[in-house]
Amino acid sequence: MARTGRRPAGSGTRETILSAARAAFARHGYDGATVRGIGAAAGVDPALVHHYYGTKQGLFVAAMEFPVEPATVLPALLAPGVDGLGERLLRFFLALWENADGRSPFLALIRGAVSHEESAALLREFVTREVLGRVAAAVNESQPQLRATLVGSQMVGLAMARYVIRIEPLASADIETVVAAVAPTVQRYLAGPLAG
Amino acid sequence: MARTGRRPAGSGTRETILSAARAAFARHGYDGATVRGIGAAAGVDPALVHHYYGTKQGLFVAAMEFPVEPATVLPALLAPGVDGLGERLLRFFLALWENADGRSPFLALIRGAVSHEESAALLREFVTREVLGRVAAAVNESQPQLRATLVGSQMVGLAMARYVIRIEPLASADIETVVAAVAPTVQRYLAGPLAG
Repeated sequence: MARTGRRPAGSGTRETILSAARAAFARHGYDGATVRGIGAAAGVDPALVHHYYGTKQGLFVAAMEFPVEPATVLPALLAPGVDGLGERLLRFFLALWENADGRSPFLALIRGAVSHEESAALLREFVTREVLGRVAAAVNESQPQLRATLVGSQMVGLAMARYVIRIEPLASADIETVVAAVAPTVQRYLAGPLAG
Repeated sequence: MARTGRRPAGSGTRETILSAARAAFARHGYDGATVRGIGAAAGVDPALVHHYYGTKQGLFVAAMEFPVEPATVLPALLAPGVDGLGERLLRFFLALWENADGRSPFLALIRGAVSHEESAALLREFVTREVLGRVAAAVNESQPQLRATLVGSQMVGLAMARYVIRIEPLASADIETVVAAVAPTVQRYLAGPLAG
């Protein structure tokens, strides 16, 4: 267990549990998923899941990490400056949702947020601290936090309309059509006038 | 039971059942709500609920009618023409969500849509036919259906960010601030250029 350069014992098991948890939350939502079911799907005793992660909520927090680390990805997207930032953020967000595996953690977070105040708080706190806080810090205009949340509103709405409710023709529109239509919105929220 | 001008017997009971169903779907989602629980809340035998509405899905369809009739409200909003239409639609939508009673049917629809393909289909079909179809018919530009769905994406995202996830400072921003920031987005989707 000392730092020998090898994987700590059990880390593979933890990842197996987290994968099963992500799948279960994405499929059943927060209420529907059970530690027992997740343990069964991971092929481990539920007691081991409790040992590693405590409650279902602890497991949820550990499992629902975004498929990408905002702390890694956002600086690269923000670095070139505000010019074109709306389009860069939008393309990155769409790429995550276009991939069914990338989509499921987000979908699980949204599913939880519309069903439970506790889950809404988890999503709200994570997004505010790790995502919108970084975006707001890169904005040079007045009301950076409001601007970041407006960007969030268009992003989550696009995900809902295109990938969750799947309203046509938006659901089937090609990415370039979507980017051309929506990137100017995101860019105005970031750097344009907010009032007429 | 002939047309005597009096209320048909049982219509009060039906309304009581539908009210209980709306509250249950809004509170528990589609899966969590039960015909048994709705019957109990309405003070009637569950068999009567089944008699009137068949399955839980039939009850859902009957109960989840919007608090306003799109067929009544939208023509009035659309009648003055495309000028200012983005702001009129946005103000009407926000007024519905500002009211907790007006909000709950929409929230129930969204909750269902993120959890069940069946519920997503119900919402999708209703919104497409009764709401977006009317908006698209009032649009004079190319791609009216795509434009209407883009409007929908910003509207649902605003509702999610402000009223469901409640991300600050958007959640507490006054209505005029929100309208000033978002109405130009809706207006551009309706009548502006969709591509740079």
